[in-house]
Amino acid sequence: MVVTSKAKISDKGIFGFTKILLRGAAQVMFQSSAWCGLFFLVGIFWGAYASGTPLVAWGALLGLLISTITGFILNLPDDEGENGLWGFNGILVGCALPTFLGNNIWMWLSLVLCAALTTWVRTGMNNMMKQWKINSFTFPFVASTWVFLLAAHAMNGLMNTHELHHAAHDHMQHLHHLYYTGSLWDMAVYMMRGVSQVFLIDEWITGAFFLLGLLVSNRWAFLWAVVGSALASFTAFALGASMSHITQGLYAFSAVLTAIALGSTFYRPCWRSALWSLLGIITTVFVQAAMNVIMPHGIATLTAPFCLTTWIFLLPMFKLDKQMADHTSWHTRKR
Amino acid sequence: MVVTSKAKISDKGIFGFTKILLRGAAQVMFQSSAWCGLFFLVGIFWGAYASGTPLVAWGALLGLLISTITGFILNLPDDEGENGLWGFNGILVGCALPTFLGNNIWMWLSLVLCAALTTWVRTGMNNMMKQWKINSFTFPFVASTWVFLLAAHAMNGLMNTHELHHAAHDHMQHLHHLYYTGSLWDMAVYMMRGVSQVFLIDEWITGAFFLLGLLVSNRWAFLWAVVGSALASFTAFALGASMSHITQGLYAFSAVLTAIALGSTFYRPCWRSALWSLLGIITTVFVQAAMNVIMPHGIATLTAPFCLTTWIFLLPMFKLDKQMADHTSWHTRKR
Amino acid sequence: MVVTSKAKISDKGIFGFTKILLRGAAQVMFQSSAWCGLFFLVGIFWGAYASGTPLVAWGALLGLLISTITGFILNLPDDEGENGLWGFNGILVGCALPTFLGNNIWMWLSLVLCAALTTWVRTGMNNMMKQWKINSFTFPFVASTWVFLLAAHAMNGLMNTHELHHAAHDHMQHLHHLYYTGSLWDMAVYMMRGVSQVFLIDEWITGAFFLLGLLVSNRWAFLWAVVGSALASFTAFALGASMSHITQGLYAFSAVLTAIALGSTFYRPCWRSALWSLLGIITTVFVQAAMNVIMPHGIATLTAPFCLTTWIFLLPMFKLDKQMADHTSWHTRKR
Repeated sequence: MVVTSKAKISDKGIFGFTKILLRGAAQVMFQSSAWCGLFFLVGIFWGAYASGTPLVAWGALLGLLISTITGFILNLPDDEGENGLWGFNGILVGCALPTFLGNNIWMWLSLVLCAALTTWVRTGMNNMMKQWKINSFTFPFVASTWVFLLAAHAMNGLMNTHELHHAAHDHMQHLHHLYYTGSLWDMAVYMMRGVSQVFLIDEWITGAFFLLGLLVSNRWAFLWAVVGSALASFTAFALGASMSHITQGLYAFSAVLTAIALGSTFYRPCWRSALWSLLGIITTVFVQAAMNVIMPHGIATLTAPFCLTTWIFLLPMFKLDKQMADHTSWHTRKR
Repeated sequence: MVVTSKAKISDKGIFGFTKILLRGAAQVMFQSSAWCGLFFLVGIFWGAYASGTPLVAWGALLGLLISTITGFILNLPDDEGENGLWGFNGILVGCALPTFLGNNIWMWLSLVLCAALTTWVRTGMNNMMKQWKINSFTFPFVASTWVFLLAAHAMNGLMNTHELHHAAHDHMQHLHHLYYTGSLWDMAVYMMRGVSQVFLIDEWITGAFFLLGLLVSNRWAFLWAVVGSALASFTAFALGASMSHITQGLYAFSAVLTAIALGSTFYRPCWRSALWSLLGIITTVFVQAAMNVIMPHGIATLTAPFCLTTWIFLLPMFKLDKQMADHTSWHTRKR
Repeated sequence: MVVTSKAKISDKGIFGFTKILLRGAAQVMFQSSAWCGLFFLVGIFWGAYASGTPLVAWGALLGLLISTITGFILNLPDDEGENGLWGFNGILVGCALPTFLGNNIWMWLSLVLCAALTTWVRTGMNNMMKQWKINSFTFPFVASTWVFLLAAHAMNGLMNTHELHHAAHDHMQHLHHLYYTGSLWDMAVYMMRGVSQVFLIDEWITGAFFLLGLLVSNRWAFLWAVVGSALASFTAFALGASMSHITQGLYAFSAVLTAIALGSTFYRPCWRSALWSLLGIITTVFVQAAMNVIMPHGIATLTAPFCLTTWIFLLPMFKLDKQMADHTSWHTRKR
């Protein structure tokens, strides 16, 4: 946030604006590489069409667009926008609302409002938090989406009861097709599903695209995503959590983000920060289990367990490497 | 908060102290006009007697008195007290407890403790929040009242089961009398009910008194109260919320406060702040719906949706007008 | 936190380290006297064996050890560790997990992780809170333990259903043995149970040990513990709370801590701070009742009502005595 010049969308050109959008996708996993974002978007589209819910992909694109444009309209600092930091909450909103709500005009208008909202909720939360050297992460997405998902239980216009039941039914059928053979390949599939669930998608090929995107951007981020998903799923398994949740990657997606955040973003990779990240991954699993238990009306935890755990591990401000990375921003390189 | 001289109740005289009380009523809607407060009190008494719950009006008066006197006892800065900022949480406590709890000695003692509590909860919360240029608003009332309403579920002394059932029954009967003709007059009635529900009263004439009070104090506040109530009710209607909730003004009262706060108090009226306020009103409706869904044991949301939404819209500290009004205090003129 | 030299466990010697552990036990009630901590530990062991749950005592010892050693490993400031401030959250975790979860390897591993976690959650929370001159108190214990207790509902490995039922059954049987004669002796027993429940133990002799420990360390702390437990139980009784909860001390334990904190720790004893403490005790009872009502899945409130109420009473930063004690640290004397 050193550079505080204002952003103008007209100065960017089509190519520059597209790069900003792609970085917005990549920033969900703390990368500011446009190539990484391209892999992410391909993974989202593949997964959404493969799951028979193509609207999730188009919602993601719309959410990304709206939240990024909102940053320009609000005249936020150019530096943040240039790195895709306005778009990552919006793209997640765009994945979540079509997944959980009915396909109608009110849902799409809500998606627009909710995606735009994340941009200024983020600004406000970061204003509050910068004194503690932490960032709001994906919490603007989590909080805004919770409001709209809960509101749908009081406002019929947002809820398509038929479709919701349908979705739940599909989900169940999906589960019955699973065989828990425990082969190495199956475990790799569960691990990749955990990565794909970061964007609320339950397809291992999508997870593979995401991992490729990380590999292109930062090999440590790739490594920690793999370790985070695998270790979290294993921890949940050892502690006797629901097998269907584990094999769908639902204990892993928040841990993937915790792992990338602690292991390769806010601390430089070293053996001390590696131990810290492993502890963070395991703690995320307990927070995930606890939140699964208390979420009302079957509302999803979204990435709240990641936010809470990573805040807990950053707030003490321990210096684990020679020079601690700055907690408030992570966008040190662009591609 | 520039003036920090200590307040002495004996220096005020009967007339001065009465003015402070009236301003305390007016500050619920961000006005420091004693005339406005007089209209508010008349509206409360009219509504409480018309609804057959006169104790609500006397509770309001007691809560206002206790929380204001608490400010004097605690030696808080005179400037705040002079503007009625000690009383507005207390008057709301005084409306809420007799509405929801049984009429017995423990309820009245709780009302006294709860009203007094709001005065130092407000001091503490403002101490925390001033660095973010926001104010605790009515949240001291909300938090303290929630504690006492929830506690009543564990402590029989506070709860008069018979009366509670009675009240709920009356409420239901009341609803059955409603006809949703959708005429312009009906809509005006629902709009005014929304304004009256700021003080937990469901009578359009009370809402009319409140609007008159605002008109006397600040015509922008009047305008935004009307727009806030109407737009919030319409939004809830469009999204398919419960008709009985809408016609009782239950989707509107928090939005009324958001509208006055953003449209005429913390930002000077201009077209940018008008757009911001309209967004705030619509967002308040979603937060209201979401909170209605999660409140446990049928506890009311009170004005929490207003507090949350207005904080979200103030925290980014956008400069919408030439010179942004100071977020921490709004009492610029007295009458 | 003036002294910030790093702690080395090897510099302490067996005797020094034991003193640090004992002070850790004593700090649950804001004392830094090793003798006081010895009385506390004896009380815990007596109570755990008397209740037929000896693992609670050994869990307490393990939690105390782990959280203290974690402070050394993390190189936290020596001054805090020397005063036992790393251990008090951990000893409470060690009491809570064997009380509520099954006796198996996963519970013990969780206890180790949870106890260690409290040490850095405390560091992080204190980093956040020091600007408001308040301390995290036992909230690191509360938050971390809630996560593990809730997680147990989603992870069978942590939950021994048989033992849980067994414990609940024992509890019920225990209740049936109670006679509410209301004699002075009975009331003294209930009061002492309230003190013993600070460590989740329901034995009046344990409470007597705790009171003796306080007497050794600070007679004002002793006095306020007695007053806090008695007044809280009486308030709950007057308001018609459940008799079995009252006689088990479940309305008193948080109030005991509020009383010691406000009456003898953060304010110097004087008539103004005495009034403030009495208000704090009564408020704690309402917060306790409210939280009992909303805790999900029968999860215990732990000492959250104490933390919330004491924060509310400290945040306004009223100067009640000539020179207000520093809110951020209370360890002024060691023995």
